[in-house]
Amino acid sequence: MTGYGDTFTAWRTAAGDHWSAYTRHAFVEGLRDGSLPPTAFLDYLVQDYLFLIHFSRAWALAVTKADTVDEMRLAAATVNALINDELALHIRTCAEAGLSESDLFTAQEKPQNIAYTRYVLDAGHSGDFLDLLAALAPCVMGYGEIGTRLAAEKTSTTYAEWIGTYAGEEYQQVCRDVGSLIDTAITRRLGDRPQNSPRWPHLCQRFTTATRLEVGFWDMGLET
Amino acid sequence: MTGYGDTFTAWRTAAGDHWSAYTRHAFVEGLRDGSLPPTAFLDYLVQDYLFLIHFSRAWALAVTKADTVDEMRLAAATVNALINDELALHIRTCAEAGLSESDLFTAQEKPQNIAYTRYVLDAGHSGDFLDLLAALAPCVMGYGEIGTRLAAEKTSTTYAEWIGTYAGEEYQQVCRDVGSLIDTAITRRLGDRPQNSPRWPHLCQRFTTATRLEVGFWDMGLET
Amino acid sequence: MTGYGDTFTAWRTAAGDHWSAYTRHAFVEGLRDGSLPPTAFLDYLVQDYLFLIHFSRAWALAVTKADTVDEMRLAAATVNALINDELALHIRTCAEAGLSESDLFTAQEKPQNIAYTRYVLDAGHSGDFLDLLAALAPCVMGYGEIGTRLAAEKTSTTYAEWIGTYAGEEYQQVCRDVGSLIDTAITRRLGDRPQNSPRWPHLCQRFTTATRLEVGFWDMGLET
Amino acid sequence: MTGYGDTFTAWRTAAGDHWSAYTRHAFVEGLRDGSLPPTAFLDYLVQDYLFLIHFSRAWALAVTKADTVDEMRLAAATVNALINDELALHIRTCAEAGLSESDLFTAQEKPQNIAYTRYVLDAGHSGDFLDLLAALAPCVMGYGEIGTRLAAEKTSTTYAEWIGTYAGEEYQQVCRDVGSLIDTAITRRLGDRPQNSPRWPHLCQRFTTATRLEVGFWDMGLET
Repeated sequence: MTGYGDTFTAWRTAAGDHWSAYTRHAFVEGLRDGSLPPTAFLDYLVQDYLFLIHFSRAWALAVTKADTVDEMRLAAATVNALINDELALHIRTCAEAGLSESDLFTAQEKPQNIAYTRYVLDAGHSGDFLDLLAALAPCVMGYGEIGTRLAAEKTSTTYAEWIGTYAGEEYQQVCRDVGSLIDTAITRRLGDRPQNSPRWPHLCQRFTTATRLEVGFWDMGLET
Repeated sequence: MTGYGDTFTAWRTAAGDHWSAYTRHAFVEGLRDGSLPPTAFLDYLVQDYLFLIHFSRAWALAVTKADTVDEMRLAAATVNALINDELALHIRTCAEAGLSESDLFTAQEKPQNIAYTRYVLDAGHSGDFLDLLAALAPCVMGYGEIGTRLAAEKTSTTYAEWIGTYAGEEYQQVCRDVGSLIDTAITRRLGDRPQNSPRWPHLCQRFTTATRLEVGFWDMGLET
Repeated sequence: MTGYGDTFTAWRTAAGDHWSAYTRHAFVEGLRDGSLPPTAFLDYLVQDYLFLIHFSRAWALAVTKADTVDEMRLAAATVNALINDELALHIRTCAEAGLSESDLFTAQEKPQNIAYTRYVLDAGHSGDFLDLLAALAPCVMGYGEIGTRLAAEKTSTTYAEWIGTYAGEEYQQVCRDVGSLIDTAITRRLGDRPQNSPRWPHLCQRFTTATRLEVGFWDMGLET
Repeated sequence: MTGYGDTFTAWRTAAGDHWSAYTRHAFVEGLRDGSLPPTAFLDYLVQDYLFLIHFSRAWALAVTKADTVDEMRLAAATVNALINDELALHIRTCAEAGLSESDLFTAQEKPQNIAYTRYVLDAGHSGDFLDLLAALAPCVMGYGEIGTRLAAEKTSTTYAEWIGTYAGEEYQQVCRDVGSLIDTAITRRLGDRPQNSPRWPHLCQRFTTATRLEVGFWDMGLET
C-alpha cells in the first residue's frame, strides 16, 4: 500500500501510535497549513543540516556492513545523494535567509538531534546491516510519506518547496529503492518468514525507538 | 587542585558555566539536602542502570582503541568495575524498591539518556582514543567531584549511600587513575604542550558537549 | 562430545579438513614430541604476544556488540583473562629467554598474524555479535582441543608448560564457558534450529576462514 | 616532485626500501615487459576484485570519520569511483576471460589479500581519520606511480590497458586529490609542522606496514 516494501509496512504497523505522532506532528501540520513560524522553520533547517551530515555518515557505515555488491552500491549512492543533493537544498534555502554553510556547520547541535543520529550510528556499530537499516528507515520513509500527504492536503504554499522535495518523484524513488533494499536484505538474512525470527521484535524495537526520536526532533523544532 | 590530572583541570575550565550547571544542578542539590523525591531518585537509578550498560560499552571500545598495553589494562579494568561493581549497586538499591534486574534492563531508555551514551560511543568511533576519553571524562570525574563535595556539605542522610559511593576512596582512586591515563595518553599523542595542538579546541568541545548532555541527564531526572 | 557446545561441534564439522590441518599441524606435532626447535617456539611466542593484544581487542569489541548483560559479563571477563593472565605467561616465558615486554611489543607483526587478527576484528565490525563469535571460536576452542590431545599423547616434556596451560582446568573452563555463550547467543538470535537460518552457511564460512588463518599462523611459525 | 602532496612524499621516503620493493616488484616488471603469464594476471584480477570491495568499505569508513564536509565529499566520491568505475573494469576484463561477476564475488580470498584490507579497516577503527589515510595511501598513490612509470618504460603492449588505466589522467587526478586531502587533513589535526608531532612516527609506520602488505599482495600474484 505504501509502496515502500513489505518490511517497512510491517515495521510501521509495529510502531503503532508512535508513527502517527511522528508523521502527523504539530510541526508537520504547520508545514501543511503554513502556520509554522519562519524562524522555527529556519531553526529546523539548521539542525537538519547537522542531522544530514551524521545521517550520511550512517549510510556510509552501511556500505561497510553490506554483504553484497548490490547492497554496497545502493548505500553508496544514498551517501552521495545526501551529501551532494539534499545538503545542497539546505545550504541554498539557508543562504536565502542569510546563513552561510559555515554558520550551519558550526551551529550547536541540540540534544534531540544528537540523540537521534548517534542512536542510528550505534545501531550500526552494535548490530549488523539489518539493525542499521531498521534505525535508518523511519527518517527515509517517514519523510516520503509526509511529503506525499502534504502535497495532497496542503492549504498554503508557504512551505511548498520543502513539500515538493519530499513528494517529488526523485525522493519517492529513493524511498522505493530503500524499501526494496530492506526487503532483499531481510530475506537474505532472515529468510522468507522474517516475522518468525527471534530477531524480529528486536528490529521492530529499533524502528520504533528511531521513530520516537523523530518525534523528539519535531518537538525540538517547536521549542524555540 | 582537583587531583584528577592536568588535562581534566584544563578541560573543566574550558567547559565554563556548563561545568557548574552539571555539578551543581538542582538534582544534585536535592541529593545533598535530601529534598529529592524518592520516586525521582528511583527513576534516575533505572535510567542510570541503562546508562552504565552503554558507558561500559564505551570503555570496552576504549580497549579496542588503545595504543599501549597499559592503556588497554586500565580501560579493561574500568569495564569490569562498571559491569561487576557499579551496576551491582544499582541492582541492589533497585531491588530494595521492588525492581528486578529484568525490570531495569527492559525499562525504556529516555532520549536524554540515549543522547549522552551514544554521543560518547560515536566520539570513539569517529575519532581516536583521545576523542573517546574527552567524552568519557565528564561523567567519571564529575561524579567524583560531586561525591566529594556532597560528602562535605550534605545536610541530610537520605542519600548518604549514593554520596558515599562516589566520595569513597575506591571511586576517588578510579578518578585519579583515569586522570592519569588521560594525561599520559595526551602527552603520548599531542606532546608536552597539548594546548598548542590544533586538536585541543576540538577535544575541549567534546568534553563540553558531553558536559551539556550530563546537564540534560539531570534535567531528565527532575522531569517526571 | 567435545564438551564445547553444540554450535562449535557443528561449525567444526563444517570446517572439514581445515580443522585437522590446524589442530594437527606439523607445528603442533613438534610441540607434542618436542622436535620443534626452541627458536621457532620463541618466534611463535613473540608473534602470539602480538596476537593476544589484538585478540583481546576483539573480545573487547564483543562487549560493545553484546545484547544482554550476561553476554557483556563473559566477554569482559575474557578480555581481563587475556590481558592479565595469558599475556603474563608469554611475558614470563619470553623473559626467561631474555626478551623484555618492550621487545615483544615492538616486534614486527608478520603478515599471517595481521591477517588473522584483523579478519576477526572486521568480522565484528562488519557483522553482529554472532559473526564475531564465529571468528573468535577457532582460536579459543582449537587451543583447548590441542591442549587436551597433547596432554594425553605427548612424548616429550620440552613443551609441557605450554601444553599444561591449554590442557589445564582453568583454560578448559574458558572453552566450556565460551561454548555455552555461543550456544545461548545463537538461540537468542537464530532460534532453536539455527542450521535452517540463511545466516548459517555464512557463519560456518566465518569459522572456516578463521580456521584457515590459524593454519597460516602455524605455517608462519615454521617458516623462520 | 611526485605531485601527490608533501605528506605522501615524506611518508614515501620514510618507507625506505619497502617502497621500491612494492613499486618495482617482479610482478610489476612483468606487466611492463609483458612477461607476466596471463593466468597470473587473471588470478591477480580476481583477488584485486575482492580487494576493491574491502578497499571501498575502508573509504566508506573514512566518510564516517571525517571532520569536515569537504573531507566527507572527497571520501564519498572515492567510494563511488571504486564501486562503480574501477570495479567495472575488473568485471569487464574478467568477463572477457570467461569469469562472471558471481565467480569473482565467490572466489576465495587469499591470506595476503585479507591481511592488507583488514589491516586498513582496523587502522580506521582503532585510530582516527589520519591513521586510516596513512593506511590507504600506499595503494592509491603507489598504483599512480607504477602506472606513470610503466607508461613511459613499457616494452610490450600486453598489459597496456591496465597500465593505461592507472597512468591515465582520470586516475592521476584521483591521486592528486587524495594527496591534497591528506595534506589538508594533516594540517588541520597536526598543524604546520606535522613531523614534530609525536604521532608522526606512528603514521609513518602505518604507511610502511601497508606498503609491506602491498609487497605481499604482489608476491601472492606470483605464487600460483
